[in-house]
Amino acid sequence: MRESGISVLDELIALLARLPGIGFKTAQRLAIFILKSPDEYASQLVQAIVDLKQKTGLCKRCFNIAEGDYCHICRDPKRDVHKICVVEDIVDVMAIEETHTYKGLYHVLGGVISPLAGVNPEDLNIKPLIERVKNEPVEEVILALNPSTEAETTIIYLTRLLRDSDVQISRLASGVPMGSHLEYLDGATIGMALQARQKIDKEK
Amino acid sequence: MRESGISVLDELIALLARLPGIGFKTAQRLAIFILKSPDEYASQLVQAIVDLKQKTGLCKRCFNIAEGDYCHICRDPKRDVHKICVVEDIVDVMAIEETHTYKGLYHVLGGVISPLAGVNPEDLNIKPLIERVKNEPVEEVILALNPSTEAETTIIYLTRLLRDSDVQISRLASGVPMGSHLEYLDGATIGMALQARQKIDKEK
Repeated sequence: MRESGISVLDELIALLARLPGIGFKTAQRLAIFILKSPDEYASQLVQAIVDLKQKTGLCKRCFNIAEGDYCHICRDPKRDVHKICVVEDIVDVMAIEETHTYKGLYHVLGGVISPLAGVNPEDLNIKPLIERVKNEPVEEVILALNPSTEAETTIIYLTRLLRDSDVQISRLASGVPMGSHLEYLDGATIGMALQARQKIDKEK
Repeated sequence: MRESGISVLDELIALLARLPGIGFKTAQRLAIFILKSPDEYASQLVQAIVDLKQKTGLCKRCFNIAEGDYCHICRDPKRDVHKICVVEDIVDVMAIEETHTYKGLYHVLGGVISPLAGVNPEDLNIKPLIERVKNEPVEEVILALNPSTEAETTIIYLTRLLRDSDVQISRLASGVPMGSHLEYLDGATIGMALQARQKIDKEK
């Protein structure tokens, strides 16, 4: 690791390099940017980090980010309480919200089952999900996990746990994404899309 | 821009997205990481930013990052005060220091002359450089700017200003970088390398 000779700079670079996707070179560039930026920017940044850590936490019901005990989605009386969309992470809630196509509730698992990475079912928010299905007027649980073998394992695990409840379980459609070119797509995606091919109504 | 519905989160994302090379998606990922990280990490990060802004500034002599009035290189009595290496930015000082091949001093210009981008000679630390050449026992000024047309303009400008002093002016060698393949290199680099070809001593 390259040392700047300035301990406070090296300290900030080392901390920034722990952020996801930020390597040492990028951390260095960010630290130098902060160093040279107006004091106002640095103090806004510091305040925003402090505020985020102090004023927010996880929703007690769905584990989404929340100011207070419950998140803004759980608190919204207009949301459809009969649907729970199960996602891996808070960013997935944001991605789905942006589509403006879903009006139900969420449940953030906090990851997927991955024994190799040391993530077991008890490390995820699975038990609270099962409790919610029992105690809330849920009619459908939509599993919206990022496609991966670990997600498949998690889907099988959750499906077994919910087998005896009379809730409908569904998952995101697999297939070719919008704007893609078959020649550049991986075989697994094309195979999935072929297998899940949709009938075209000739009458329409 | 995607909104999280949480103002303190959106505030941090917006501030992080102002960092160089950090887009909105990355800023979002970083903010969520900070949200979920242990409080200790966030407070270390905040402290490091505060420390960097409060305890460091620019060296009064060479404009490198400094704790106190002068940077650790200017304060080091072992450095060769007869050489000044002129660079664009503080990160360039760090890059050259890492090579352990240069023992002289530095001078950080703060950029290159670029009228199109609104950067004129008076916006850079050029006047202090000329003063240093006059007042310090400088024998050589090494122009180590990042290759670009703006750097060429800056080199011509500095060379003219220093024409009447008896200081030696030099610049980094242009040529093919180590580990490169000619077939993937741009024509300008190959042309430069051909023009500046080095004689091989047949006797060795």
